[in-house]
Amino acid sequence: MSYRAPVFDIAFALKHAAGFKQALDDGLYGDLSEDVIDAVLTEAGKFATEVVAPLNVVGDRAGAVFKDGAVATAPGWKEAYHAWTQAGWNALAAPGVWGGQGLPQAVNVACLEMWNSAAMAFGIAPVLTMAAIDALTAHGSDELQRAYLPKLVSGEWTGTMQLTEPQAGSDVGALRTRAERAGGGTYRLTGQKIFITYGEHDMTGNIVHLVLARLPDAPAGSRGVSLFLVPKFLLNPDGSLGPRNDVRAHSIEHKLGIHGSPTCTMVFGDRGGATGFLIGEENRGLACMFTMMNQARLAVALQGVGIAERATQQALAYARERKQGRAAGTREGMSPIIDHPDVKRMLLTMRALTGAARAISYATAVAVDRAHRSTDEAARMAANERASLLTPVAKAFATDVGSEVSSLGVQVHGGMGYIEETGAAQHFRDARIAPIYEGTNGIQAIDLVTRKLPMSGGNAVRTYIAELRRTADAVKAANDPAFGATGARLAEAIDSLERATEWLLKQPQSDAALAGATPYLRLFAHAAGGALLAEQALAAARLAGESSAPARIALARFFAENIAVAATGLERIVTEGATSVNASEAALA
Amino acid sequence: MSYRAPVFDIAFALKHAAGFKQALDDGLYGDLSEDVIDAVLTEAGKFATEVVAPLNVVGDRAGAVFKDGAVATAPGWKEAYHAWTQAGWNALAAPGVWGGQGLPQAVNVACLEMWNSAAMAFGIAPVLTMAAIDALTAHGSDELQRAYLPKLVSGEWTGTMQLTEPQAGSDVGALRTRAERAGGGTYRLTGQKIFITYGEHDMTGNIVHLVLARLPDAPAGSRGVSLFLVPKFLLNPDGSLGPRNDVRAHSIEHKLGIHGSPTCTMVFGDRGGATGFLIGEENRGLACMFTMMNQARLAVALQGVGIAERATQQALAYARERKQGRAAGTREGMSPIIDHPDVKRMLLTMRALTGAARAISYATAVAVDRAHRSTDEAARMAANERASLLTPVAKAFATDVGSEVSSLGVQVHGGMGYIEETGAAQHFRDARIAPIYEGTNGIQAIDLVTRKLPMSGGNAVRTYIAELRRTADAVKAANDPAFGATGARLAEAIDSLERATEWLLKQPQSDAALAGATPYLRLFAHAAGGALLAEQALAAARLAGESSAPARIALARFFAENIAVAATGLERIVTEGATSVNASEAALA
Repeated sequence: MSYRAPVFDIAFALKHAAGFKQALDDGLYGDLSEDVIDAVLTEAGKFATEVVAPLNVVGDRAGAVFKDGAVATAPGWKEAYHAWTQAGWNALAAPGVWGGQGLPQAVNVACLEMWNSAAMAFGIAPVLTMAAIDALTAHGSDELQRAYLPKLVSGEWTGTMQLTEPQAGSDVGALRTRAERAGGGTYRLTGQKIFITYGEHDMTGNIVHLVLARLPDAPAGSRGVSLFLVPKFLLNPDGSLGPRNDVRAHSIEHKLGIHGSPTCTMVFGDRGGATGFLIGEENRGLACMFTMMNQARLAVALQGVGIAERATQQALAYARERKQGRAAGTREGMSPIIDHPDVKRMLLTMRALTGAARAISYATAVAVDRAHRSTDEAARMAANERASLLTPVAKAFATDVGSEVSSLGVQVHGGMGYIEETGAAQHFRDARIAPIYEGTNGIQAIDLVTRKLPMSGGNAVRTYIAELRRTADAVKAANDPAFGATGARLAEAIDSLERATEWLLKQPQSDAALAGATPYLRLFAHAAGGALLAEQALAAARLAGESSAPARIALARFFAENIAVAATGLERIVTEGATSVNASEAALA
Repeated sequence: MSYRAPVFDIAFALKHAAGFKQALDDGLYGDLSEDVIDAVLTEAGKFATEVVAPLNVVGDRAGAVFKDGAVATAPGWKEAYHAWTQAGWNALAAPGVWGGQGLPQAVNVACLEMWNSAAMAFGIAPVLTMAAIDALTAHGSDELQRAYLPKLVSGEWTGTMQLTEPQAGSDVGALRTRAERAGGGTYRLTGQKIFITYGEHDMTGNIVHLVLARLPDAPAGSRGVSLFLVPKFLLNPDGSLGPRNDVRAHSIEHKLGIHGSPTCTMVFGDRGGATGFLIGEENRGLACMFTMMNQARLAVALQGVGIAERATQQALAYARERKQGRAAGTREGMSPIIDHPDVKRMLLTMRALTGAARAISYATAVAVDRAHRSTDEAARMAANERASLLTPVAKAFATDVGSEVSSLGVQVHGGMGYIEETGAAQHFRDARIAPIYEGTNGIQAIDLVTRKLPMSGGNAVRTYIAELRRTADAVKAANDPAFGATGARLAEAIDSLERATEWLLKQPQSDAALAGATPYLRLFAHAAGGALLAEQALAAARLAGESSAPARIALARFFAENIAVAATGLERIVTEGATSVNASEAALA
């Protein structure tokens, strides 16, 4: 089956789990009204469902095709991309001064979920453009901004993000692409980049590459990398397309999934050097790149949410239709498999994990908005820390969820799930990239433990944990039997998170902390996701006549009683498991 | 990298984790010596590594090709299969009277791991033949046995197992393939079967289909199915190949993985009816099929172990070679990523899960041998219950482990893992079928809870738990600091298993039990797998001069402290989570 954007659920999660309603009420978004947001989300849902979703299978089967240095995207992709930019979706959250609509990042992020549910290989393209807009806006010269931002904002040109080289993956500082000063403020780049998403394609007339490279006199390591803008076509003084620059796609990869997205090896300087323009300062490229990466990491979290949502929809539809066996309490005939408890468990797990990942990701986006828009400096600082804290959690948890949920989706389909025509297998293949790119999930966990926990002497994370605890208390105070043990289980998960956090804060750079980073991130996400689902359930229960309240309470309860209960085990792994990881030479010999 | 059969590890697990050494000492295998077993395993390892492993990539890329009703296997497969049968591997555990070598199933199962590590799509073919041998040996008439067993045992012909129809998957009783009595003890079959592994291929001159069908006057449901032998070519009175039977492959599936294994839709009776021969009694086909299925389920467990082992080897090799970043304590230059704690955790998880799945699967095979070979009737009965108890655990846990470990294998490779040429992605795709076929893992869990726990009024499982507890006690008594908290954590996991078991025994057929079946099976496997790894570590520590003792202790400790600690959470899910599963209509609406 195809995808139908769950616009009501998305809007509800945004407003009531992620704190968007509160931000609106606080005046963060000026006179923006809930109605406008609802209308935008509805239109996005329509576009995702009707225009983008049909691309998904085509992209998988036809894939992107490389020939003679050019990349042809799958049939229909170019047209869909044009329609998408024409409708203004690329410009949604971009600055008004460059033609953007200046809507909240939180709304853009909700739309990103829908583009990626509809076709993940399509949805990743604008992520790079949006990241490039961010980097240029924050660090680009006036001249570069004037020349490139209008077309990037409209989507007439796309962006790329070029860090990786064969010897420089997670270790960006090991890159070797060389940039030499060439006079007139330009640079000449030579080298090779790999795994460049949409490094070459036929959807737009120009491609704006943002490339990390090293000056001849640069210090070693990551303090010696600079960021350059290297357009596919150089611009004439009037802004029109000029000569072809010396950057080319050498080949594309044959991948497990997201076949519609061309993953390119890029060569710079085969004919003397590609012309590049410095963004920010020399040797400060990593700071600029981090601006891009934070945006891109949150966007990739939404890929995880998006693919999980799509896999869940497909599994639910199949489980309602497919009949096998007879469920308890059924008199005669076969039952739809959704009636069997074990299948119910799988479907609820899918829905609960998806909902938790969505809530965490949206909450991160609201924090990003607060960091940019709050009028109060201290509020901006606090929100910036909140966004920094949650970004690795959103990226790693949501993309792990994408993989786990799409795997469950295959399982719900039984043998049919293993047949490519069914479509469940494509989600499973597509989803598997998201835990890897934009910083592996291991890197996210290490970022969380070593850099994010110590922010403000640990107060950023402690403040967040205190907020989660208020939610658990509110569930207990609601005293609604439908919540079952939700309040108690959440409180236990939050206790575990607190103890594990304090343990890590004593030694955030130690090998013991590094060994516990991944299970800690999962523990964090279980406590946070459970609390945000409960927040949403409480809000639904408060809203007069909200018919979704029973469903939201049931889901929050399932999460607390069946997923968050892993917390005590995860806490022990973090605080007691490190020795058997780090003293493991014998077992891995 | 390619596969190298870990013969020493396999032999050690067989002897010291799975109880094979004890069985030898008990005289279960007559005068069979350890030396003979070691020699057999060494030869199998050599064959798997040198002859079968090179097929793996070829099978994935070329796949099996269907044309005009015939299936061509990938280049080299036919020759490799012939070499494999010539070397006697198909006949390893088959009865001597039909040309088999009568070696222990436990040894055959260890070899199955190696065939499946080497090429999972290849390894599945003999599984069906061996299952057919079992069914014929147990239930076939003398005439059928004489006509078919010699060629099945030698591997000159392969077998198939035909249950599934479009409307009859997990619910076998819903099948509609029709068998009419045709005189002379023969039957005429008409109908369609789907998902038939190696239903058609070019590796052998004949294919022996074992087919479930329904007689016109059969009762409804599973009590009305009968098992038939339907050969591709009928036999002349002298045993030579006679006329083509009216059973044909209609098409093959386009699958996520195991491309080398043709998955066929089979049509019976397009030209009047396929000639079939009854196996066992009319309407008693399910009992016969269960003989096949138990064998096949254990074999599929070994597919899980096999793919996990191969993925682990590949990830370890990559992690030793790939350098990124600098690990703590390293002075200069980049470190191999195996030195980073988070990568260590992934690799240890892979190795520990693989080892646990292997130990459980081998232990199941030893129980099968005891059930067949013990001279004491009571011992045979007890062993049969042990095998029945462990088979669903082995199948579901080991195949889940295959999926999880191969996914970690992709992750350890980073971006390279997503590129098909690396090979990690093939393991990930191949592994995904094993939790589905031969009874989905949900069906295994339900079988465990509803049929296996109640055996002997619960005494079968209680006896097993008591055995596990003796291992935890022995670890504590060893008092070796290298074990860390292994004894304590195992004891806690076993406590959880015991409480969850008693809870389920009070209501094994309830919806609450069904809702907890999957987490219960995982809890069972964590306690059992942890104990068996500890058994193996204790054995290594006891053996004078056994250099692998530190590695085995380290692995058992990692499992206990980092995996088995999930037990308390799993116990709660089983005993407290069911309401939020079964009262979930709202959340799944």
